[in-house]
Amino acid sequence: MNAEIIAIGSEMLTPHRQDTNSLFLTDRLNSLGVTVDFKTIVGDNFTHLTSAVATALSRVDIVLLSGGLGPTEDDLTREAVASVLKLNLKRNNDLLAGLHTRFAKRGITMSDNNAKQADVIDGAVVLPNANGSAPGQFMDTVVGKHRKLVILLPGPPKEMKAMYDAEVRPRLHSILPPRFITKRMLRIALVPESTVDARVAPIYKGYSDVETTILAHNGEIQLHFQYAGVSLNQAQARVDEVASRCEQEMGDDVFSSHGESLEEVVQLLLGLKDVRVATAESCTGGWLAQRLTSLPNASRTFLGGVVAYSNDLKNSFTDVPESVIDAFGAVSGAVARAMAEGIRTRTGAEIGIGITGIAGPGGGTDEKPVGLVFVALADGQDTDVKKLSLSGDRERIRWWATQNALDMLRRKLM
Amino acid sequence: MNAEIIAIGSEMLTPHRQDTNSLFLTDRLNSLGVTVDFKTIVGDNFTHLTSAVATALSRVDIVLLSGGLGPTEDDLTREAVASVLKLNLKRNNDLLAGLHTRFAKRGITMSDNNAKQADVIDGAVVLPNANGSAPGQFMDTVVGKHRKLVILLPGPPKEMKAMYDAEVRPRLHSILPPRFITKRMLRIALVPESTVDARVAPIYKGYSDVETTILAHNGEIQLHFQYAGVSLNQAQARVDEVASRCEQEMGDDVFSSHGESLEEVVQLLLGLKDVRVATAESCTGGWLAQRLTSLPNASRTFLGGVVAYSNDLKNSFTDVPESVIDAFGAVSGAVARAMAEGIRTRTGAEIGIGITGIAGPGGGTDEKPVGLVFVALADGQDTDVKKLSLSGDRERIRWWATQNALDMLRRKLM
Repeated sequence: MNAEIIAIGSEMLTPHRQDTNSLFLTDRLNSLGVTVDFKTIVGDNFTHLTSAVATALSRVDIVLLSGGLGPTEDDLTREAVASVLKLNLKRNNDLLAGLHTRFAKRGITMSDNNAKQADVIDGAVVLPNANGSAPGQFMDTVVGKHRKLVILLPGPPKEMKAMYDAEVRPRLHSILPPRFITKRMLRIALVPESTVDARVAPIYKGYSDVETTILAHNGEIQLHFQYAGVSLNQAQARVDEVASRCEQEMGDDVFSSHGESLEEVVQLLLGLKDVRVATAESCTGGWLAQRLTSLPNASRTFLGGVVAYSNDLKNSFTDVPESVIDAFGAVSGAVARAMAEGIRTRTGAEIGIGITGIAGPGGGTDEKPVGLVFVALADGQDTDVKKLSLSGDRERIRWWATQNALDMLRRKLM
Repeated sequence: MNAEIIAIGSEMLTPHRQDTNSLFLTDRLNSLGVTVDFKTIVGDNFTHLTSAVATALSRVDIVLLSGGLGPTEDDLTREAVASVLKLNLKRNNDLLAGLHTRFAKRGITMSDNNAKQADVIDGAVVLPNANGSAPGQFMDTVVGKHRKLVILLPGPPKEMKAMYDAEVRPRLHSILPPRFITKRMLRIALVPESTVDARVAPIYKGYSDVETTILAHNGEIQLHFQYAGVSLNQAQARVDEVASRCEQEMGDDVFSSHGESLEEVVQLLLGLKDVRVATAESCTGGWLAQRLTSLPNASRTFLGGVVAYSNDLKNSFTDVPESVIDAFGAVSGAVARAMAEGIRTRTGAEIGIGITGIAGPGGGTDEKPVGLVFVALADGQDTDVKKLSLSGDRERIRWWATQNALDMLRRKLM
């Protein structure tokens, strides 16, 4: 079966807002073996809405609508669906009583317009809303000679997601033929997408029954595998097989074999090895510390850090000798090394990380261009220094510098 | 005139990718007085594509398509549009020669499939692509008895945007009735959306000819004003009038009267007042420093900072007396104050900022719950301390803490 998702709301037809509900719904539908063939975004306009619903009913089996179920006169989804299906809307007394109770509990008298949230299309099952006032509706109907499922969900993501999982998924599951869909994700940092693809394509192309997607974003490559099988075990074995072979090919370039983020992997490894880290940052301005503290319980593995933007502070915070700055310049491997070693000693951490570089857009020279960054990692025995030539704008250079630092730390801990 | 934007590409029907081209196109179309009534996302499938094109032609005046103009067999936009309009595709010899030249310049022999990029729909104007191989097409045609504009653009945002601005905008401008559309944006930090709306609604409702939109996101409220007038001066005067009255009402809660970010405003004020700042962060983990260094030339206004996650480092980095931590706890106004004053003295900055709090999800108590954050700002004379009770998850609490710190700094500098 195939589906169309219709997102309803005039704000999603402005330059400022986007439909995001459909990403969640697509993921959920795919996991039941349903493909999404169309997505439509339409405003709070009766004529436009009926056009969108009629078009969807003419071309897919399942129509999911989100939004337009509220109490205002702009909320027209119920009316539009009923109109296209030539069915009546009837006010449901139980729902109406529930709405009155809901308002009474909050000490508010319900205004009349709210009553329309109790209107139900003939033949629809009412879907309770655990997080809001507007219930959803689920219709299993026939249009022409074709069975159609039409599902009305509220627009606010929190309400929509909870209602889908509690009310829609079980109903679709019982209607659709059984499918066992499994997924795996491998994550790789800092290797170019074309390099990853050249190495893993010969593997995944041998698994034409597994859907493989490569996504590149923000200094990371994701390999997504998805498979629909006759049993859960068989489906799991199939994605595990292709994922394992790709992981073997990419070796320790793979930082995550089950979808964990780089921050999660690093924090896990730090915890396992009982290692605490401290940071001394220049061009990244605290971003590495921010990432190392982004997860709960970061205080167990992160002691602290400094942002030494000025040369004076590089000296006073991390004991970088002025002579080293004078001899090599603030952006140099020697200064990154001294920052890493200095912050390690100052804080008593097992590992110190130093970063210095030119994030741009100004400040570059022929010898030291924008994007030149040095990352150093000191563990008390050795200090590794990595020289990077990063491209892009200031934000990208700063992000990639932190990405490199986290990946160096991960490799050190493995 | 109204428009529909069709984004073409199967990857946008997965849970991983979204159409973003339509945000740019909506902004541009709005500025010509064109409303976007529908957006459709469709995969690389001939039947689905013709359905989407036919539907769009039946309900809007202008159909903009992006994607599906490349050389692969999945690229079917040209074929689908020609099929729906019952027009022929003809290979254009000049375009074909251009493609051969393009490949030859890069020392590559052009493979046969690339030739289809030279196929032009009968009657279409070819739109040169300054950033890629696939040209666009612009059709001013009649369907039934209605004039329709059908515009084919490439999918990659860089190619699409440049082609729109260079080739499409001038053509639409000459076809559409003249409109002068002006915009203004006011930005407000930390005031609840409902409070802002209650105060400014009585003003903007008096300007029913100005389109006013309120957006709330990430600790910020944006007030967007847009007006279509008979002359540029008149339109500018109209948005300026309503914006000025709303700004007057909201007073110095408005941090930006022409759309600048909070980081930009703070850096500008620091520069104007010749003030340099330093930071001492605990729960925000470097995020405030990261924001203060996110713009070029941050080194002129930001000296550096520390991330003092452990109590030891609060003492050794910012001279917070152990007795103060013992007496009040690490999360306290007294410690935030000592951190701000300590980092100011240590670095020689004019202003020091200290942040300590409980970002969660663990670590909260009845007395000091998750979301309790203290922000202190020391200028050498006074130290202001603000106690915050923030809600939401760890990321939200950390972000809002930095948002509060930046806004305190802004108000101090005003």
